[in-house]
Amino acid sequence: MHAKKIQFSRQATTFYFDAAFSNLKKLVPQKTSVLVTDEHVFAAHQKHFKGWNTIVLKAGEEYKVQATLDSLFEQLLAMKADRTWTLVGVGGGVVTDMTGYAASVYLRGVKFGFVPTTILAMVDAAIGGKNGIDVGLYKNMIGTINQPQFLLYDASLLKTLPLSEWRNGFAEVIKHAAIMDAPMFKELESRNVLFYQKNKVALQKLLQRNAMLKSKVVKEDEFEKDRRRLLNFGHTLGHAVEKQYELMHGESVAIGMAFAAKLSQEMLHFKGIDRLVKLIDQYGLPITAGYDKQKVFDVLVSDKKREGEQMNFILLEKIGKAVIRKIPLQEIYKLI
Amino acid sequence: MHAKKIQFSRQATTFYFDAAFSNLKKLVPQKTSVLVTDEHVFAAHQKHFKGWNTIVLKAGEEYKVQATLDSLFEQLLAMKADRTWTLVGVGGGVVTDMTGYAASVYLRGVKFGFVPTTILAMVDAAIGGKNGIDVGLYKNMIGTINQPQFLLYDASLLKTLPLSEWRNGFAEVIKHAAIMDAPMFKELESRNVLFYQKNKVALQKLLQRNAMLKSKVVKEDEFEKDRRRLLNFGHTLGHAVEKQYELMHGESVAIGMAFAAKLSQEMLHFKGIDRLVKLIDQYGLPITAGYDKQKVFDVLVSDKKREGEQMNFILLEKIGKAVIRKIPLQEIYKLI
Repeated sequence: MHAKKIQFSRQATTFYFDAAFSNLKKLVPQKTSVLVTDEHVFAAHQKHFKGWNTIVLKAGEEYKVQATLDSLFEQLLAMKADRTWTLVGVGGGVVTDMTGYAASVYLRGVKFGFVPTTILAMVDAAIGGKNGIDVGLYKNMIGTINQPQFLLYDASLLKTLPLSEWRNGFAEVIKHAAIMDAPMFKELESRNVLFYQKNKVALQKLLQRNAMLKSKVVKEDEFEKDRRRLLNFGHTLGHAVEKQYELMHGESVAIGMAFAAKLSQEMLHFKGIDRLVKLIDQYGLPITAGYDKQKVFDVLVSDKKREGEQMNFILLEKIGKAVIRKIPLQEIYKLI
Repeated sequence: MHAKKIQFSRQATTFYFDAAFSNLKKLVPQKTSVLVTDEHVFAAHQKHFKGWNTIVLKAGEEYKVQATLDSLFEQLLAMKADRTWTLVGVGGGVVTDMTGYAASVYLRGVKFGFVPTTILAMVDAAIGGKNGIDVGLYKNMIGTINQPQFLLYDASLLKTLPLSEWRNGFAEVIKHAAIMDAPMFKELESRNVLFYQKNKVALQKLLQRNAMLKSKVVKEDEFEKDRRRLLNFGHTLGHAVEKQYELMHGESVAIGMAFAAKLSQEMLHFKGIDRLVKLIDQYGLPITAGYDKQKVFDVLVSDKKREGEQMNFILLEKIGKAVIRKIPLQEIYKLI
């Protein structure tokens, strides 16, 4: 285990890389902590939860809603959890999003940390302090930006992860490479999911590299006024198709990246579209899906990134370099 | 109208004293703002809402719950309110608490301001950034600490306020005097509610004095690690009796102050108990109520101010000077 501490504007987050779940006991007191997880993670890693106060949520994005939080709060009250307690989200992005949000508003805020159990959560979802829940078709409409005290990385938790979840996480790794790390893009081109599944050291290096890439962007612009928006590459159209067609997050981001690459080609003469599309395919992710143009557009209009009649879209100038452009809604409608 | 700007740790709040409701147009753009109010306030001041996007909530503390927020969020989504919008809470403490909380989490945070319409909101509830909702019998269990952009004070809004609401607000004025302003305590002793109802200048001075007293404490200790806790004088037992016996907030705080004064007499030889009890009575507020000791104690144990087997209680050394003492739960049980 080795620690990297990142100082954000209001809090510091310590990343414990190459760690083991059992290290958690050294980080938080068992008596005044609660592990928050979901049914799948609990079933797959039951032994890790022994001796800990535990709250088990229903699994899946469809439960990332207020009703689940209501039940979480009731259980915290029943445990008589007070302001000295710490919540620890153990799971994928849905669990860490909900735990971070719950901790940010329970008793007007208690301490929290994460043990991410998926590639997606380790490289992206659990990092950066964004948390929240969905409302109807709209993703993450309610939430806060609030940094965890710590993240603990135990790569052995990934052993039980199905292949589809590995692919899901690599969509965000490809995103990081496309927008800000051309050397990593090259590395990814020369490898595939199977390689990282078999090479623990290469995997751990990749996880850490991505966690630090994202943290650096967040540190520079925690409240997403500017540079942090680059991380939304592939997410604008992605979010709009994700909920409607019950795609995995990574799948919809992959489709969104392919769309944004096309937009980049048209508007900025971006030349890397073939390399990006090939890489997405190489990691088992989709490039496109049949979707209802009008439906997708209606959801786009409700996106948090819309500002009046324009929408901020993230485009690529080249592999490893993204830029933000305001695009009129009409233009987007034409290109969908 | 004159402005006082207070810089809190993360945001600045501008107080517009001696203002008129119509000044609001100068502070926020009508097209991208929503006034959030309740049925009573809307009915009493309908003309002020003309030309504004408005969301009207059900009135009363029993609606300070998640279900009301859910409906508020749905209406904001239906209005296509994006991150550039401002929410303006127009009403008493319930409205400003819910509006502040809604704005803090909608799209992970939008701008907000308040037009308080009650004495209680003007001197206390709308100031300091605490917001939130109740869960079951527990008050303000879910919320954040987040400062509004502005507060607009229009004393003419108080004309429609019933006498019980004036008394309700003066409980917090008496609290401020008791814990940190002996000269104001003396002023209050020489006057009564009727005097302030008839003397607009004296009332406006009192409102501003209390708003600045509270802001000063909050500025020194926004996240309630230390000095801000003094403002909880009368609120610990107060909260525990309030929800169970459907008392007004001011009534329960008055009862809580009388209890805390007794505790102060026993533990710190506080000598001002007679003056305080007389003043509470002079402003038409209760000193005691028949309540179920065990029930009240059970709710006390769930208070946010509990820390393990002890509870922070605010006591008086003398009129105008409060202190914080950790008191074992057992001791409190004996004295209730």
